[in-house]
Amino acid sequence: MKLSVPDILLAAKQNEIDELRRLTSRARFVGLLGHMIHVLQAERGASSIYLASAGKRFEANRRHLIAESEAVESLLRASFQEQLDTPQNGPARQYSLMAWVLLGLESLPELRKRIAEFSIDAEAAVTEISRIVAGLSALIFEVADSALNPAISRSLVALFNFVQGKEQTGQERAVGALILAAGLCERKYQQRLLHLIEAQERSFQVFSEFAGDAARAQWQAIQETPEIIRIERLRRILASAQDGASIDANLINEWFDCCSERLERMWKIQCSLVDGLLEHCNVLIAEAERDLHDSEGLLKGLMAHPPASAGQVERLFDPASPASREGAFMPGAHLGSHPGQAVIDMLQAQSDRLARMENELETARRSLNERKLIERAKGLLMARMGIAEEAAYRMLRQTAMDQNRRIVDVAEAALALPAFIGGDGRRGSSRP
Amino acid sequence: MKLSVPDILLAAKQNEIDELRRLTSRARFVGLLGHMIHVLQAERGASSIYLASAGKRFEANRRHLIAESEAVESLLRASFQEQLDTPQNGPARQYSLMAWVLLGLESLPELRKRIAEFSIDAEAAVTEISRIVAGLSALIFEVADSALNPAISRSLVALFNFVQGKEQTGQERAVGALILAAGLCERKYQQRLLHLIEAQERSFQVFSEFAGDAARAQWQAIQETPEIIRIERLRRILASAQDGASIDANLINEWFDCCSERLERMWKIQCSLVDGLLEHCNVLIAEAERDLHDSEGLLKGLMAHPPASAGQVERLFDPASPASREGAFMPGAHLGSHPGQAVIDMLQAQSDRLARMENELETARRSLNERKLIERAKGLLMARMGIAEEAAYRMLRQTAMDQNRRIVDVAEAALALPAFIGGDGRRGSSRP
Repeated sequence: MKLSVPDILLAAKQNEIDELRRLTSRARFVGLLGHMIHVLQAERGASSIYLASAGKRFEANRRHLIAESEAVESLLRASFQEQLDTPQNGPARQYSLMAWVLLGLESLPELRKRIAEFSIDAEAAVTEISRIVAGLSALIFEVADSALNPAISRSLVALFNFVQGKEQTGQERAVGALILAAGLCERKYQQRLLHLIEAQERSFQVFSEFAGDAARAQWQAIQETPEIIRIERLRRILASAQDGASIDANLINEWFDCCSERLERMWKIQCSLVDGLLEHCNVLIAEAERDLHDSEGLLKGLMAHPPASAGQVERLFDPASPASREGAFMPGAHLGSHPGQAVIDMLQAQSDRLARMENELETARRSLNERKLIERAKGLLMARMGIAEEAAYRMLRQTAMDQNRRIVDVAEAALALPAFIGGDGRRGSSRP
Repeated sequence: MKLSVPDILLAAKQNEIDELRRLTSRARFVGLLGHMIHVLQAERGASSIYLASAGKRFEANRRHLIAESEAVESLLRASFQEQLDTPQNGPARQYSLMAWVLLGLESLPELRKRIAEFSIDAEAAVTEISRIVAGLSALIFEVADSALNPAISRSLVALFNFVQGKEQTGQERAVGALILAAGLCERKYQQRLLHLIEAQERSFQVFSEFAGDAARAQWQAIQETPEIIRIERLRRILASAQDGASIDANLINEWFDCCSERLERMWKIQCSLVDGLLEHCNVLIAEAERDLHDSEGLLKGLMAHPPASAGQVERLFDPASPASREGAFMPGAHLGSHPGQAVIDMLQAQSDRLARMENELETARRSLNERKLIERAKGLLMARMGIAEEAAYRMLRQTAMDQNRRIVDVAEAALALPAFIGGDGRRGSSRP
């Protein structure tokens, strides 16, 4: 049979449905990645206290958490396999990240053994687990970055930033525990603590920008819970101590408990973010399927029985306003109203919808792109100047403040200029 | 069987091969789109001369060209069907463009009838066919924009710009013919002619930036062919005539012939660009397949018989230099050299390769993104100020020159500011 315009319109709709189904599978995958991060955070916390207390605390708790990590890990491995079995377009970096994460998961038994034998210190153990978490988090970023539906993309950006913020909270708990376990304030840990607090604020800020009303309300609701007061008081003690001063080591239990309470509250929100995402996917699929069904009926009717008048067609469809049509490719459109006019109107409405979706998608992805640029610029500064991540970030931020520019613009300039440091101060060319 | 890191590495390689195969099919599709454009350009030229000469010239030629258009159209329809049958990730706009193009092709028989009956004038007929060409060209842009391999992406950017330049040459032939057929110089046609000459230069400039050495050399070789001298002489006559002055109508034959000769030379280059593209795809597929085969053998051997020494592994693989490894997620890497080290090295090499490819891809796509921004800004100005495309472009260019900025930066600023016209002159924020 000869290919017709309605065939293409229906194929486009079907492709949209298929894409939404793939997106649902990826949203489930993201949920599992977030779950794995959560259990590793718990295991990391317990292991660090276990090591710091020379095995006196958290022994049973740690064993319990390891069992939980292992259970989620086996679910995650099955999900990896599912991702490998689903043909995908060009997520090359995703494979690579999956391999790194798997390598990390495979190193866990050995690491757990060394922790049990006290042949590794708390800081090194925390670093090791944090690396795996970073890999899992980078995978969530990849999935968010490859989503093509603007609404889902926004939710994924919100979720990614929430997971980031939660991980920064987890790391803050670990750094605070390191200081308190030693009973001694070290400047480098203090700085790391302050960096993590600031990073949390940024992450939750972006989360709030992209989250839906319900998720944002949930987040607002946990901003005034009792543990916050305790956390802020302990943060003040940790942050204001002089370098080398001793700190009351007994505070470690309170610190760990209130941070953990906070993380649990965050975990509940994370779960409902993932549930909301999956629900949203299902709603979109149902809508698209209804739309496909309706379009099929309409197009069949129109092709078989040309409508009596153009007005009849106008009432069936909701074509875009004529004003929005200019500039489009509308060959034959001037030939006036004919039976095919309904198809033209439908196509016009679809083109307009696509253009709108594309603009929305771009807005959602801009935040991800900015993050990519800042991460890359940080990496460049770290490699060139041999400085730590926080120092690289501070450098970008300071330059931005001095020059009254956005951090992302400074990051771009840093990436564009081979001799950025001590460079000629040329302003960053805007790369679209 | 339990999922292992080598499984993921091999799946990634297989996915790369599948993606390259899809890319080959899309390169063939692009070739056919370019072919359809070429035959429509020829038909458009013949039709315009046929109408201008009141049917005295090009009658048989036109019939012959229509038959050729129809033949290529049926190949293109089959190719559309093939694209619909291939599952794709999110090329929603491509479906929409395919539908517009098909609609345009379906309006052709009616248009041809009206041309044969002289119930449409040359300018309107040219506009009608040019719309279809614009849709075909936009489809090539979409395919170029969705390619994920940097080398292929560069070739597609070159090809797209070449096709654009050739179409601008074709339109220049048509506008020149309109002026000469009337024997009268009209300012608006003159301006359009100058705009098209300038646009050609820009298109071929970008083509040269992205084309490979061989293609660039072919292009250079046709810069000194005899018809260029004739074209330039006629361009001078057309461009320097006063508004309303009469022009020797007998020049129309010479103008049409030398422009057509030029278009034929371009067509030969376009064919060899497509051939080169397909060949390149095949080379990449062969390389990736060999690589997959080798990796399979190596990984099997390594998993079964751990190598005697790390040095043995180093000689088998070509791991990235240690300097480039920092910042990556390398859990377990510090555990030192063990049988799995070879897999880690392989993974590291692959991650480095991906990062490099991504940077290259970004460079190739930047030109496409800039084009998108400029097109959108032009559309905005056209809609807001009710001006023609050329006037909108001139406005952007003039602003860029006045403010010593790049056109794309001005386009971005225009899109970002709701009140651009008479706006506050805030500099365009760079959107990554």
